[in-house]
Amino acid sequence: MKLEGKVLIAQGGGPTAVINQSLVGAVLEARKFPQVTRIYGALHGVHGIINEDFIDLTQETEQNLELIARTPSSALLTTRDKPDEAYCKEIVRVLKAHDIRFFFYIGGNDSADTVRIVNEEAQNSDYDFRAIHIPKTIDNDLLVSDHTPGYGSAARFVASAFAGVNLDNRALPGVYIGIVMGRHAGFLTAAAAMGQKYDDDGPHLIYLPERPFTQEKFLKDVKESYERYGRCIIAVSEGIVDESGTPIITQLTENVERDAHGNVQLSGTGILGDLLADLVRDKLEIKRVRSDTFGYLQRSFLGIVSDVDQREAREVGAKAVHFALVHGKDGSVSINRVGNYAVEYRLERLVDVARHTKSMPDSFINEAGNHITDEFRKYAEPLLGTDFPQPYRVMAPKVEKILK
Amino acid sequence: MKLEGKVLIAQGGGPTAVINQSLVGAVLEARKFPQVTRIYGALHGVHGIINEDFIDLTQETEQNLELIARTPSSALLTTRDKPDEAYCKEIVRVLKAHDIRFFFYIGGNDSADTVRIVNEEAQNSDYDFRAIHIPKTIDNDLLVSDHTPGYGSAARFVASAFAGVNLDNRALPGVYIGIVMGRHAGFLTAAAAMGQKYDDDGPHLIYLPERPFTQEKFLKDVKESYERYGRCIIAVSEGIVDESGTPIITQLTENVERDAHGNVQLSGTGILGDLLADLVRDKLEIKRVRSDTFGYLQRSFLGIVSDVDQREAREVGAKAVHFALVHGKDGSVSINRVGNYAVEYRLERLVDVARHTKSMPDSFINEAGNHITDEFRKYAEPLLGTDFPQPYRVMAPKVEKILK
Repeated sequence: MKLEGKVLIAQGGGPTAVINQSLVGAVLEARKFPQVTRIYGALHGVHGIINEDFIDLTQETEQNLELIARTPSSALLTTRDKPDEAYCKEIVRVLKAHDIRFFFYIGGNDSADTVRIVNEEAQNSDYDFRAIHIPKTIDNDLLVSDHTPGYGSAARFVASAFAGVNLDNRALPGVYIGIVMGRHAGFLTAAAAMGQKYDDDGPHLIYLPERPFTQEKFLKDVKESYERYGRCIIAVSEGIVDESGTPIITQLTENVERDAHGNVQLSGTGILGDLLADLVRDKLEIKRVRSDTFGYLQRSFLGIVSDVDQREAREVGAKAVHFALVHGKDGSVSINRVGNYAVEYRLERLVDVARHTKSMPDSFINEAGNHITDEFRKYAEPLLGTDFPQPYRVMAPKVEKILK
Repeated sequence: MKLEGKVLIAQGGGPTAVINQSLVGAVLEARKFPQVTRIYGALHGVHGIINEDFIDLTQETEQNLELIARTPSSALLTTRDKPDEAYCKEIVRVLKAHDIRFFFYIGGNDSADTVRIVNEEAQNSDYDFRAIHIPKTIDNDLLVSDHTPGYGSAARFVASAFAGVNLDNRALPGVYIGIVMGRHAGFLTAAAAMGQKYDDDGPHLIYLPERPFTQEKFLKDVKESYERYGRCIIAVSEGIVDESGTPIITQLTENVERDAHGNVQLSGTGILGDLLADLVRDKLEIKRVRSDTFGYLQRSFLGIVSDVDQREAREVGAKAVHFALVHGKDGSVSINRVGNYAVEYRLERLVDVARHTKSMPDSFINEAGNHITDEFRKYAEPLLGTDFPQPYRVMAPKVEKILK
């Protein structure tokens, strides 16, 4: 006999530009199954579940859902709560009370872990129940998957930003430092290189959390690049660490803010960029040094989105419903690259995706540890989507001088 | 007898997203006049003129020019040089040596002043010569013109950024401070409001250089807004000043950098945003406070452009050629709003545009001095271009709680 009952969907962690594609993919697909009695959305992720803050998505029009799908940032709002066992027991109690038999949680590795614990708690109490984790994160750091929904659009933003900054800096030369999001993985910072077109285009240097950052090496790199190009554009991950693994940013601020997961707050301050700029100004005596911290613009910017990312985010939402309702399985949906370029969606064990994160492979980072390789370019290129704007230069020949 | 000789085009000051539309508009239009013997471009603005760093734009294909037109940031590169009389005498010496009879300088009010002095020097030495200033600035602060090319695209970027930040902050509530470019005029910061759609959308507060900024008022405003909405998004101009007209940023840094015009360096540092964030965190005891400084992303971002701005920038370039070559006049091209919405291009006296800048009119700023008015919205709306992306929200009804 088919499992019958309600569907619950929620969104957790940081928003992305395409997270609502996954939401709408799941909602519209779930509507096709007669054993689904209602489709609920929880507001503010798991926090909304324990508070029974549900809305009835059965009563959304398809037209409005399609408009929501194209709107960046979690339409069901989100949370930074990281549920423990007791929290998950409470979740299961609420699920039972509302006869929720299918749970889809859109989020990163912490959300996968939540789904894993909730599923265990349900099994322990003999509650017939399917739970699927739908991946999303701009950090691109989930295990197993080739890449994650949300990354391509954020990467497109970062690539566009650096491509523009490169044109600006070429017109008014100097040193420019752009700080990019990414706590442990450098994928998003590495995307800064994806707008490079001409040989002398920036970013000329890229610093990732995967390689220890030292001031000496940094200054040497900047000096060399500045002497070579007469300017220097630098992409720096907010998560860069020293040899001991300590975030560079904690060397600079006395009062670090920590979230529920114990992570140091990295975004929402310009301090890392400002320190690095001061360093270049003081030690290399270069006058025009600027730094920008891209901050929250990167993950929900209205109007920059990768069409490939959009399509895949939609698909992982819909496939999650198939895995739960057609196949009766629990797990985490993964994206697997096949051919050149195509993807297949599979179901992974929750334990293989939960908690841990992925870093950039060595083959994506150059030997000097200050830029990316062509292998990364090949990897990232399809993810940023089609029709990436191309800059062009004047090619007219020089005129001979008369007076000098 | 018609004045015959070479055309010279250059770009000065900060780049914009559409500054090459004006360049290409002028080049392609100038090609239609047989009395134009060659079309030169000077590299790095007036700096390139005194160094005779010219390229022969006659040898650019129309196809490449069209591609350049769509590329952000000064294709001929730019300069911060502010020429005095001696500098302008040197410019005229070079112009004469190369038989340059028509000079088009794309820039802001300082560039207009340069064109004015160069023109005077040419007249004083009986050199038959036409000089036209082609307006551009993301600050929108030129006198006479209804608005300036470059503003609409930068305004679209700022509006898009705040619309995205609003969606992000709604999902993960807190206080968010975004620092926007604009030294004396608040037009660009005011554009932060152009992405507001729903009643509770941010920015909830907007601080402009046109109104004195006090910490007390700021904290009171933020507290009220935070209590009302449970969150608060704030757009702040980098150029905000205290009652005495001193930039707030100079209260915070000991070593201020000044450019050739004596202006304090405001962009390229996150310090203003960080200080305001600390203030809110400390005084209002709000935990989640974030600040971003949009910096250089605002003026040359690849992929965000206003189609209206593009079209008008193209047109001012082409019209400048008409004024010089058909009408034999000198001056500065202005954009004048007619109907709803249309524009006419006129020629102004250089002295009426040079040196001074325009501020936001009182009617664009609300009485409390912390937001904009509907009159500003009406003014700015057509400038941002068509097809501005619209965010949508879920509208599904709440589900009744069972356990609580």
